[in-house]
Amino acid sequence: MIGSSTDTHAALIQRTAAAGKAIFCEKPVDLSLERARECAAAVKRAAVTCLIGFQRRYDPTFAALKGRLDDGEIGEPEMLVVTSRDPGAPPVDYIKVSGGIFKDMLIHDFDIFRWILGDEAATVYATGSCLTDPAIAAAGDIDSTAVTIRTKKGRLAQINTSRRAAYGYDQRFEVLGTKGMLQAGNHRPTEVTAATAESVAQDKPEHFFLERYRVAYAREMAHFFDALAKGAPVRTTIEDGVKALELAEAATISWREKRIVEL
Amino acid sequence: MIGSSTDTHAALIQRTAAAGKAIFCEKPVDLSLERARECAAAVKRAAVTCLIGFQRRYDPTFAALKGRLDDGEIGEPEMLVVTSRDPGAPPVDYIKVSGGIFKDMLIHDFDIFRWILGDEAATVYATGSCLTDPAIAAAGDIDSTAVTIRTKKGRLAQINTSRRAAYGYDQRFEVLGTKGMLQAGNHRPTEVTAATAESVAQDKPEHFFLERYRVAYAREMAHFFDALAKGAPVRTTIEDGVKALELAEAATISWREKRIVEL
Amino acid sequence: MIGSSTDTHAALIQRTAAAGKAIFCEKPVDLSLERARECAAAVKRAAVTCLIGFQRRYDPTFAALKGRLDDGEIGEPEMLVVTSRDPGAPPVDYIKVSGGIFKDMLIHDFDIFRWILGDEAATVYATGSCLTDPAIAAAGDIDSTAVTIRTKKGRLAQINTSRRAAYGYDQRFEVLGTKGMLQAGNHRPTEVTAATAESVAQDKPEHFFLERYRVAYAREMAHFFDALAKGAPVRTTIEDGVKALELAEAATISWREKRIVEL
Amino acid sequence: MIGSSTDTHAALIQRTAAAGKAIFCEKPVDLSLERARECAAAVKRAAVTCLIGFQRRYDPTFAALKGRLDDGEIGEPEMLVVTSRDPGAPPVDYIKVSGGIFKDMLIHDFDIFRWILGDEAATVYATGSCLTDPAIAAAGDIDSTAVTIRTKKGRLAQINTSRRAAYGYDQRFEVLGTKGMLQAGNHRPTEVTAATAESVAQDKPEHFFLERYRVAYAREMAHFFDALAKGAPVRTTIEDGVKALELAEAATISWREKRIVEL
Repeated sequence: MIGSSTDTHAALIQRTAAAGKAIFCEKPVDLSLERARECAAAVKRAAVTCLIGFQRRYDPTFAALKGRLDDGEIGEPEMLVVTSRDPGAPPVDYIKVSGGIFKDMLIHDFDIFRWILGDEAATVYATGSCLTDPAIAAAGDIDSTAVTIRTKKGRLAQINTSRRAAYGYDQRFEVLGTKGMLQAGNHRPTEVTAATAESVAQDKPEHFFLERYRVAYAREMAHFFDALAKGAPVRTTIEDGVKALELAEAATISWREKRIVEL
Repeated sequence: MIGSSTDTHAALIQRTAAAGKAIFCEKPVDLSLERARECAAAVKRAAVTCLIGFQRRYDPTFAALKGRLDDGEIGEPEMLVVTSRDPGAPPVDYIKVSGGIFKDMLIHDFDIFRWILGDEAATVYATGSCLTDPAIAAAGDIDSTAVTIRTKKGRLAQINTSRRAAYGYDQRFEVLGTKGMLQAGNHRPTEVTAATAESVAQDKPEHFFLERYRVAYAREMAHFFDALAKGAPVRTTIEDGVKALELAEAATISWREKRIVEL
Repeated sequence: MIGSSTDTHAALIQRTAAAGKAIFCEKPVDLSLERARECAAAVKRAAVTCLIGFQRRYDPTFAALKGRLDDGEIGEPEMLVVTSRDPGAPPVDYIKVSGGIFKDMLIHDFDIFRWILGDEAATVYATGSCLTDPAIAAAGDIDSTAVTIRTKKGRLAQINTSRRAAYGYDQRFEVLGTKGMLQAGNHRPTEVTAATAESVAQDKPEHFFLERYRVAYAREMAHFFDALAKGAPVRTTIEDGVKALELAEAATISWREKRIVEL
Repeated sequence: MIGSSTDTHAALIQRTAAAGKAIFCEKPVDLSLERARECAAAVKRAAVTCLIGFQRRYDPTFAALKGRLDDGEIGEPEMLVVTSRDPGAPPVDYIKVSGGIFKDMLIHDFDIFRWILGDEAATVYATGSCLTDPAIAAAGDIDSTAVTIRTKKGRLAQINTSRRAAYGYDQRFEVLGTKGMLQAGNHRPTEVTAATAESVAQDKPEHFFLERYRVAYAREMAHFFDALAKGAPVRTTIEDGVKALELAEAATISWREKRIVEL
């Protein structure tokens, strides 16, 4: 179980694979795409199970949506809109070693994109701004991004993110298909509604990832052990980790060089 | 078109019927059940069209619900729960001549009951309190009521009302049927949602009946002229007015005499 | 921990109390009010902790609502409307020994009433019908009820229940106060919304009590052990069990004898 | 009042301005940006009132959101996400003379962008696909688009559109600000909710623009006459029409030439 800081992931994956043991590693595999690919190769050579912690795929809401999409409820998917906003930015010291917002934060959204649309990116365009805290800009990063992906099949995806949503952890996406739309909404701590002289109000979304993905984390862990027990493949592989990182790298280049990146 | 004060309705209905003219009269027919029955008899003798202004039946939400219920979407209706609350009480001078809350305010809900369940009351039980303003109690009336009706077919209805809802005009009902439930929700002025550090909030319901039933009033009027043009019957007849008054009378007796009233 | 069949509760409570041990007992204390009172006396004499399993008070939504009500968010409570419907009736063999719908099913709602309004009943009126399965009527019971309680302070409560809601376990209530309303809504398995050519649809409520009150059961148990560890009182006492049973008894009499029962 | 086909707008605007009369003209001013600018100049020279029919600004929901944004409810705006989908594509013969999806359909969304963010575009990136009907591609157009605008102040906007949403006319947008988020949701024909063994379902959004913007059209017209009566400026000017067209032109170039367009 690798839950240590990002810069230790690759070495631990390689050593664990070499020892022939199954691996559960939090995302990202590594900040360097090359290094991540080496890890994937090491895992493949060792033929060990390796689950990368894209816990969102195990979320009850997201997993149910994916299942219904696969069952054809809305026909073929055409567009994906992902809204992914944190309640607040991490400390700037963390941001400095985070690899930047695309590798640190959007890597989850890139994984969602690949998983939901079942398609790979043809082009990536990313832009962004530093709007919440000048210290983030001083660290060479941004806190607000707008990413557009066009897939090989011509499907479209837009991802909007911010390091700060005053109302909590905003984790939504929606897929438009030929026969309708499936939306994944936020989870709330309670189902209380208050109607007063001001408004009719409900709870804000769950505060942050520990609350929002509490069930997802438990299911992810259970899935890992279940897969091991059955000798079955895991749902979020190191290849998924590499692919998401490729998108994060492309987005970073697109943003920095102000150009559309082809994959 | 009779839109004058309640104490003038009966005389005007009788004179208009005698003149052989079609009648559009706001509810109630009269505060006296006997007088209301005389009016119904006069209308019948004169064979004129007479629409009583139960505008709620013409509301887009309520009418759609009724249509879907009649189409069998939830099977046979079994229970009805009506929530009917005003944003604030009328002046006490009005309350004194209003005939009491059951004839003044709940008469609409009694009509909804008859229309939605398509059944007549076997027993009526009503209780209530004066909770919002002691002046209402001093005037011999109450401002909060809880009514239960059991129908001839054994169906159940509960009506809860208040003269004061701080959040606006609360006009909801729901029908439980053998195959599901249909709910009529409040209308809002806009579909804006605000997510802030406090909550995720939407508009309060439309303020009061003039806003909430704006479309209903227009459709009611159009229906009246349409029925006249076609020589067709109107949907809310003077018999409906009499029947709703019978329920209001029964509820008043139940509340005053603290007993279950059989009809 | 007493989770055995209802007819064993009283004897087990009395023996455990006599042994000086803390008690966690599922509702109801007993079907006989007299017997339940004897149990309460035994617990009092033995001065042991006794928690009766009204798990709903530990539900995140219900508990949050109660906390906000106590904090004065909507002023003084005036009216309570409880909707409590099961997805389906238990086997008739169970119904025959259940004590009837008021003691078996509504006992939870009577506890909610006492807890939320913080007031005691002055009068109870109950009516009902057998609408879902004639076998229930043959067993001398009903499956659909409408209960009205007027409290000593003049507050009003209406409870509507059914043994069958095609759409799942419907567990809602709302409190109208002087400054607004607080509503407790149903919980859903996921937050997926599907927009298709037919409708915009969300999940049905959680299927039944094991799903809906999963968190409540865990919190109830934790509260029990926490109270024991701290020597603190429990939140749902045997006195609460007796009081809820008094209301169930009054409702049963009201229904059978077709009269308003004073307490 | 100019409500004729698009290719007649410019000539009619110029002749009406020359005649010194007030103008109400449906969007767009013209498909040619140059021609549109000439019209704006003609209107300016003649000093006549000219309202361009961006009716969405008069929609109750959108106008309320804008008012609350201007009142500072969510602080400074940072990101805008616009979802704009039609229930179905117009005939291909219309598409051929429409000027393309960006000038025909997104021109409204570009106006929303300018109005809501109160800022002008620095860069525009647009991509898209033909996913609903090959005949649209054959006509040289697309039916699904993803547009990203970065403003001069560094704010971000994403617009996603489709010519086909199986569930009706999807007209939503949301603004993230420093202190929260304001969302404009779809309008529904009724507020009926149906809970059945399948789901808990509400109405689809209003079918298309005639239904959705019924109130907006009426308010727009009233605003025009009101402005004339008072000698006041109109809210949607010919300059707004030119500016929205500039964005549509930039998006068209971005899409065709696969490049980011700077303004």
